[in-house]
Amino acid sequence: MSAGASAVGPAATAGPVRVVGTGLLGASVGLGLRALGVEVQLSDPSRTAVLLARDVGAGVPADDASVPPRLVVVAAPPDVTADVVRAELEAWPGAVVTDVASVKSAVLAELRESGADLTRYVGSHPMAGSERSGPTAARPDLFAGRPWVVVGSPASSGEAVLAVRNLAVDLGASPVMLDARTHDEAVALVSHVPQVAASLVAARLTAADPAALDLSGQGLRDVTRVAASDPALWTSILTANADAVVPVLEALRTDLDALVDALVTARVATASADAGDGDDEGAAGLGDGPAPHAVVARTIAAGNAGVSRIPGKHGGVRRAYDVVTVLVPDSPGELARLLADVGAAGINLEELQLDHAPHQPVGLASVSVLPGLGGRLETELTGRGWRLAG
Amino acid sequence: MSAGASAVGPAATAGPVRVVGTGLLGASVGLGLRALGVEVQLSDPSRTAVLLARDVGAGVPADDASVPPRLVVVAAPPDVTADVVRAELEAWPGAVVTDVASVKSAVLAELRESGADLTRYVGSHPMAGSERSGPTAARPDLFAGRPWVVVGSPASSGEAVLAVRNLAVDLGASPVMLDARTHDEAVALVSHVPQVAASLVAARLTAADPAALDLSGQGLRDVTRVAASDPALWTSILTANADAVVPVLEALRTDLDALVDALVTARVATASADAGDGDDEGAAGLGDGPAPHAVVARTIAAGNAGVSRIPGKHGGVRRAYDVVTVLVPDSPGELARLLADVGAAGINLEELQLDHAPHQPVGLASVSVLPGLGGRLETELTGRGWRLAG
Repeated sequence: MSAGASAVGPAATAGPVRVVGTGLLGASVGLGLRALGVEVQLSDPSRTAVLLARDVGAGVPADDASVPPRLVVVAAPPDVTADVVRAELEAWPGAVVTDVASVKSAVLAELRESGADLTRYVGSHPMAGSERSGPTAARPDLFAGRPWVVVGSPASSGEAVLAVRNLAVDLGASPVMLDARTHDEAVALVSHVPQVAASLVAARLTAADPAALDLSGQGLRDVTRVAASDPALWTSILTANADAVVPVLEALRTDLDALVDALVTARVATASADAGDGDDEGAAGLGDGPAPHAVVARTIAAGNAGVSRIPGKHGGVRRAYDVVTVLVPDSPGELARLLADVGAAGINLEELQLDHAPHQPVGLASVSVLPGLGGRLETELTGRGWRLAG
Repeated sequence: MSAGASAVGPAATAGPVRVVGTGLLGASVGLGLRALGVEVQLSDPSRTAVLLARDVGAGVPADDASVPPRLVVVAAPPDVTADVVRAELEAWPGAVVTDVASVKSAVLAELRESGADLTRYVGSHPMAGSERSGPTAARPDLFAGRPWVVVGSPASSGEAVLAVRNLAVDLGASPVMLDARTHDEAVALVSHVPQVAASLVAARLTAADPAALDLSGQGLRDVTRVAASDPALWTSILTANADAVVPVLEALRTDLDALVDALVTARVATASADAGDGDDEGAAGLGDGPAPHAVVARTIAAGNAGVSRIPGKHGGVRRAYDVVTVLVPDSPGELARLLADVGAAGINLEELQLDHAPHQPVGLASVSVLPGLGGRLETELTGRGWRLAG
């Protein structure tokens, strides 16, 4: 049923489709539908945003439209989404209305309370985005290959759910049917809490000595990458999804408290052992309290267990790939030459990670291949003149 | 002064060098020195580890050595490092002794207390590693292009400091001179606390619904990648560096507490606003407490500020690259073809990130190039038949 990234051919979506909010997501929906020949009407509080979206080919301004829409896609900030959806449901009594906000329960609760016609509303959350924003960053393929969560309510009609699912498939996404609460708890775990953790770690660096920052490696860069995200958007997301985010953060804090206590205990035990001859009451004192080393080890082991559950490429269980790390001179074409050599060896590259040390004219490319192929790849690459690193 | 990754030629290090602990790091030191023609003597509590290290070419078993070492490199677990260093200082009164443990103050304090001859001891911390471990994973280039922290104590002789600095340069690393406390505080910030955060986030996934995990994207993968690290090693590191790690974790917890309180306040305010008509006491109540949205926004903004300080490629300030994201079919050679096309356009690739959605036969390659070059790259790539994504 899933169309995948290579979906082409006639659209299942019946137009006209009205897009309300022509930023990155809304304009990308318009572009994708236009590429399939579907009529798209563009609306935004900012006339400039509408004209820009029109100029990139996302549709025509809604003011110029004469036929009422059959589907409305609300791509507004999360905190105003419910109000906009309600207004659209009232304005277009023949249309199905969806939204693309990244929280779903809060929007649905507000709509329910407002007495809106929920038979024609189905929520959406396409799991796509970009560091860039605005209609000029829009792409017809923004959603290609991504999950698109479709959130019907008990009141939603079957036709409305189907219309939104068709929209997702038409745009090359993989529709995933979830209820609002399940969706919100899922994104709290896989997106919102990781965002908070990244921001909290990165915030510790604001006063760091530059010498400390020079020791940064790929680990720090990976943990903090998403900390560069937009504060206004994330304030809206986190407050709107507080019901799902708070319990996860509280559980994380419980683990953090236990870890800090364990480290403080370990520190006190070491200090008192140092004060003695290293073998007397101090060391004995270690046995009296909780076992701090066990608490620390349990924390790291729980992380091992959790990370092993994240699906890898193709949705399978994460595989332990063989990793071959190669020194790559920093000049155009070198990485391409490396990957051409990997391909020439007949070995498929599963993952690739680039690492750069400060002040070095060379990069480290970590090439992941299926288990068992690493040795042969090393032989092939060294035979072609590449230098391997650790 | 820095030799960089392409260091070749005669070694500054005078052998024989005795390596104690022939795991990944010790055997890599041996391999790198052997490649420069330096005599290496291998010692490990495990006879098997010594023989494996010999077999990969890291040196000869110390039992067979007749000449006393001039430099000893202790590559033992952090919690036994001080004892091993002390024994080596006593056994080889003519040798400089260093270690490669990732915490430095605790080792130095233990040595100082033991009355060891500190003139001949200088600590090290090469910022290198691998997901793999043991002598068979060793590489002569493991340290190439990486920072190598050299930690002299006030008692260290100039000759001892120079010997360790030469070792780092001989192995292709960039020596960085820091005192023990500065080093430990730096690695707490850039390595140990990020490790804890990654483990805490990943631990939340142990009981997650598989449907939730199917929504995982690159953000979660990046935040949790290092959570796959070894619990025993990290227990040793975190407890040994508790003095530096605890204050950073406590500051992080203070921010976390404020954020959780703000989200709870926002949730209560929303609930009471929902209970009324949305415009009365509930909304007014928002103004009475702290401003929860401001607290959330401040948390994310502090993360923005921190992450912007992490040095990017070549140690410069992180640049806002143009990012072009391309759909790459999952078959051998396709990524190489893409990068060849990037190179053919005369544009240097600054960073590359691969992303895979579950259940999709296509990957997304995000190609980062210098600001201003993104538009031209897009034109070049679409002209060569590539499909762009968001």
